[in-house]
Amino acid sequence: MKLLYKGKTKDVYDLENGFYSLQFKDDVTGEDGVFDPGANTVGLTIEGAGLACLRMTSYFYNKLNESGVPTHFVAANIEDATMTVRPATVFGKGLEVICRFKAVGSFLRRYGAYAEEGQDLDAFVEVTLKDDERKDPPISKDGLAMLNILTPQEYDILEERTVAIAKFVQTELAKKGLTLYDIKLEFGRDAKTNDIILIDEISGGNMRAYKGDEYIEPLTLEKIVLEDVI
Amino acid sequence: MKLLYKGKTKDVYDLENGFYSLQFKDDVTGEDGVFDPGANTVGLTIEGAGLACLRMTSYFYNKLNESGVPTHFVAANIEDATMTVRPATVFGKGLEVICRFKAVGSFLRRYGAYAEEGQDLDAFVEVTLKDDERKDPPISKDGLAMLNILTPQEYDILEERTVAIAKFVQTELAKKGLTLYDIKLEFGRDAKTNDIILIDEISGGNMRAYKGDEYIEPLTLEKIVLEDVI
Repeated sequence: MKLLYKGKTKDVYDLENGFYSLQFKDDVTGEDGVFDPGANTVGLTIEGAGLACLRMTSYFYNKLNESGVPTHFVAANIEDATMTVRPATVFGKGLEVICRFKAVGSFLRRYGAYAEEGQDLDAFVEVTLKDDERKDPPISKDGLAMLNILTPQEYDILEERTVAIAKFVQTELAKKGLTLYDIKLEFGRDAKTNDIILIDEISGGNMRAYKGDEYIEPLTLEKIVLEDVI
Repeated sequence: MKLLYKGKTKDVYDLENGFYSLQFKDDVTGEDGVFDPGANTVGLTIEGAGLACLRMTSYFYNKLNESGVPTHFVAANIEDATMTVRPATVFGKGLEVICRFKAVGSFLRRYGAYAEEGQDLDAFVEVTLKDDERKDPPISKDGLAMLNILTPQEYDILEERTVAIAKFVQTELAKKGLTLYDIKLEFGRDAKTNDIILIDEISGGNMRAYKGDEYIEPLTLEKIVLEDVI
């Protein structure tokens, strides 16, 4: 088992059997000691955060695989907080794909002249480049094509899968009385099949969920989603 | 003649004969006393700037009208620095449409991880919202549709016209040995026909032009473009 990459919240190992292993850590992103899933720096360590993230991810990815939406997920190993995944290459230097059901966050900061806070959005998809230095700039379908990051055809697949996954998570949260405001996903190309697959994770830190008017913190959200599962 | 609106660089009057009149001023946008066409504030006054802008605009809009690209231009009145135009309504609170032939400026600031400075771009079109407070945020075709600013069909017309106009200006500048890097346009709906027409102006301040490696200042550019015209 060879260490390939040390990430902010996960380390990646080559299992040398055709799969990779993701080691989930208790480090979470944030600034000045405050947990902020949108931040680009590791802010603090929360005991159990890695395992909670792994359990939520494996819960959703299992269900997505079953329903025919391809993900990199192969198996979860709860004891050592690792997840076995199919190797995948990211698009360019990595993209974040956001699906929005409510106008909040950076959407509202940009388009507040045209949208009210909390206004319904119809599974609106946006793509940003993963680029800490340039503050993850948004990029259009045309821009992705011109910079040879994604073809227009690939963009359409990405968008369709994003909406399908976001609506799936929305429905799962609704069963717990929660409203999904937005969710951030990552995709890559399956290293063997070249298919566009969901990679990374789906955890409390990837989404904004509310119970009525109350924002649900990532770790609380993971507890609520998983409470009947085990 | 009724004053409708006092703008940063132009005032708008209703001629009460079905047309509007734009009064070009010598105020130019900039910051700290330095001329910056991209700035959102009036920085200084340059004698003759308004007239130079009017002359360049009327030169290009005349030619565009002739070639079948619809603009709001009706006639220029050089003596009093005014331009008679068709009334038009802007999309939402106004859009800026940028066409890029070279990777510089905000494009490079956003996508510098994927593009080198000065790299060729294939008439790449981007739209930003006119919103000083939110620093003119970029917006996608999907975003414009969702916020009811432009339908996807209208976006396609806007994009096609933008490329046609930008290539026309590029060709005109090339005749003077100049290279067009990028240009910023504004469109609106003709108040009578509802057609999508080019509004505002095409002046040195709307574009970046170079002679070899040397950036040509807006007022110098206007002089070069118009030098054989009068």
